[in-house]
Amino acid sequence: MTSERSAPPTISEVAIEAGVGRSTAARTLGGYGYVSPELRERVLAAADRIGYRANALARSMSTGVSHTIGVIVADLANPFFGGVVRGISDAAHERGSDTVVISTNEHLSEEVAATNVLIDKRVDGIIIASAAVDAASATHIEQARDHGIPVVLVDRAIPGLGLDAVVIDNRAAARGAVERLIAAGHRRIGFVWGPPVPERPRRRREMIDAAARSLWTDGERLQGYLDALDDEGIVFDADLVMVGEKTEAHALQEVGRMLAMTDPPTALFCTETDALTGSLRALREARLRVAADVSLIGFDDSSWATVMEPPLTMIEQPMLALGTRAAEVLFAAVEGQDSRGELHTLDTRLIERESVAPAPRL
Amino acid sequence: MTSERSAPPTISEVAIEAGVGRSTAARTLGGYGYVSPELRERVLAAADRIGYRANALARSMSTGVSHTIGVIVADLANPFFGGVVRGISDAAHERGSDTVVISTNEHLSEEVAATNVLIDKRVDGIIIASAAVDAASATHIEQARDHGIPVVLVDRAIPGLGLDAVVIDNRAAARGAVERLIAAGHRRIGFVWGPPVPERPRRRREMIDAAARSLWTDGERLQGYLDALDDEGIVFDADLVMVGEKTEAHALQEVGRMLAMTDPPTALFCTETDALTGSLRALREARLRVAADVSLIGFDDSSWATVMEPPLTMIEQPMLALGTRAAEVLFAAVEGQDSRGELHTLDTRLIERESVAPAPRL
Repeated sequence: MTSERSAPPTISEVAIEAGVGRSTAARTLGGYGYVSPELRERVLAAADRIGYRANALARSMSTGVSHTIGVIVADLANPFFGGVVRGISDAAHERGSDTVVISTNEHLSEEVAATNVLIDKRVDGIIIASAAVDAASATHIEQARDHGIPVVLVDRAIPGLGLDAVVIDNRAAARGAVERLIAAGHRRIGFVWGPPVPERPRRRREMIDAAARSLWTDGERLQGYLDALDDEGIVFDADLVMVGEKTEAHALQEVGRMLAMTDPPTALFCTETDALTGSLRALREARLRVAADVSLIGFDDSSWATVMEPPLTMIEQPMLALGTRAAEVLFAAVEGQDSRGELHTLDTRLIERESVAPAPRL
Repeated sequence: MTSERSAPPTISEVAIEAGVGRSTAARTLGGYGYVSPELRERVLAAADRIGYRANALARSMSTGVSHTIGVIVADLANPFFGGVVRGISDAAHERGSDTVVISTNEHLSEEVAATNVLIDKRVDGIIIASAAVDAASATHIEQARDHGIPVVLVDRAIPGLGLDAVVIDNRAAARGAVERLIAAGHRRIGFVWGPPVPERPRRRREMIDAAARSLWTDGERLQGYLDALDDEGIVFDADLVMVGEKTEAHALQEVGRMLAMTDPPTALFCTETDALTGSLRALREARLRVAADVSLIGFDDSSWATVMEPPLTMIEQPMLALGTRAAEVLFAAVEGQDSRGELHTLDTRLIERESVAPAPRL
């Protein structure tokens, strides 16, 4: 709970620098009470100039520790994030903290607004599954840290930001799944979904970059798919990667296109639930059976996968553990431990069921 | 934004009554800044005695309108609530308000804590899918209203509380689904899940009461099942209702028990996703096929239901509309409209697919 630096700037020094009263500076920097937009701007600029950073101790002395952490996720309608939030709030609860959640629907502008709300609500720290893909689009996260609010990333890393991130090893998980398909004799393996770009990149590097520009996890999963192909000397075919809008309807269309190729895929690797249900609908429309005709592995296990006919082989993400680990890392930071920009990587599990069968002989 | 009453008690009158300074009373009642626990207690007791109620206008003048609404849901890992929250936050967003969400895991104690957090965070209003089943267990909700924070219920009504609630017509939805099964010739129809009590109630009224004591929606859905049986003169058989823990694993066990009866069900009505996947696993274990051997209708449509073999006939809930409607009702209350304790009922849709087949001839 102590600052690492000797004699950091105080609120009074910020007030002098800004030419405002101490209480105005305190209200602005503590995020409570009313301050006019102009004065607020002046105080924040002054704080920035002299390198003022609130810390948990200062905040606790001025306004009481809030005992609340904030969570910002991309999409609460996705059960994956529901599970992560459950893990976070269980861990916070054990430490006597409450958890408030804001969903951004994958919109960066809503994420910026959400960050400001949590700063205003004086949360002790923020865990975020960000839509920002690089440091340039993550200035709002820097802003929270400038308010002395620690930030930990979950599910998605942001390269170049130097923040702790709790993630799964997406690349290894994807590689393992595709290796499983290759071991069953498959060499034509469709990848659903790929980058959401209108035109199909022809080169591997362009394909990976386009995927990663959409989402860090997308780039990692595509990279894992390519790793597995490389190891077996299977030549990459850009036409076996879905491109375009990441929706179930578009996955249906793209898998339909792949199945109509003269050399169609004999297996599919689906990186999201909607990619999987879209693929299954495409197989049904083409009157192809899972396993018997086309093998399939999906990401994000669900109880539905166990009652499919046949039951589906799936990658299971440790949703709860991602959440509890992120909360642990956050609480360490709230208590004053410096962020070292570490990637905390949790293992996934490939749950073998019956959707992978030997490839048909050519 | 104006109070309906003439000359309501002011913050200054509360301060005089409590024997504290006006700023202490304002900080306590406005929920900002530091106030010692003892003074806080005195101010709140004084406010209670003289009938002080903060209103949105007063809060906006003293501390700025927060432009934030709070949402408390039972379980964020359930995609149903994810959809409802999405509807709420979209509607709030359009009005320039942010939405913070707290999940309670169906624990009343966590719900009470969540309500206090939202009061402390000075939200403009609260939407809650409450675990409270009657007015006696909902004193925390009364407390929020006493702080001048409007509350609207969503998904679940609380009888006797006089609060607006935005719900689906659970009873009509269940009745429609069971009527559909009866129309196909089924007369032995299993109900999954029923009341979470260890001992099976034998009488209809006890069964309904036990279900409603667990959750308002559970009671309504069981009532709808009985309505449909009554209309066709089908005698209620308590052994066709699942009792005990509401988990997938227990649904598997209870449906297994039903299927082993000398007069087993030829159809199942499943009121939750986990009830449905548990039932499907029981059918698989008994080597019975959906539709061909046992017909089935589930609650809460999902894209998974469309890719099952056969695709499942499901009740679709208007999740987004529940959320947007709840937000509309809440904003009307925030702007000063009195709650009339209305039940705002939205329609569901029975989506016919292929899991209902004619009952086998006896």
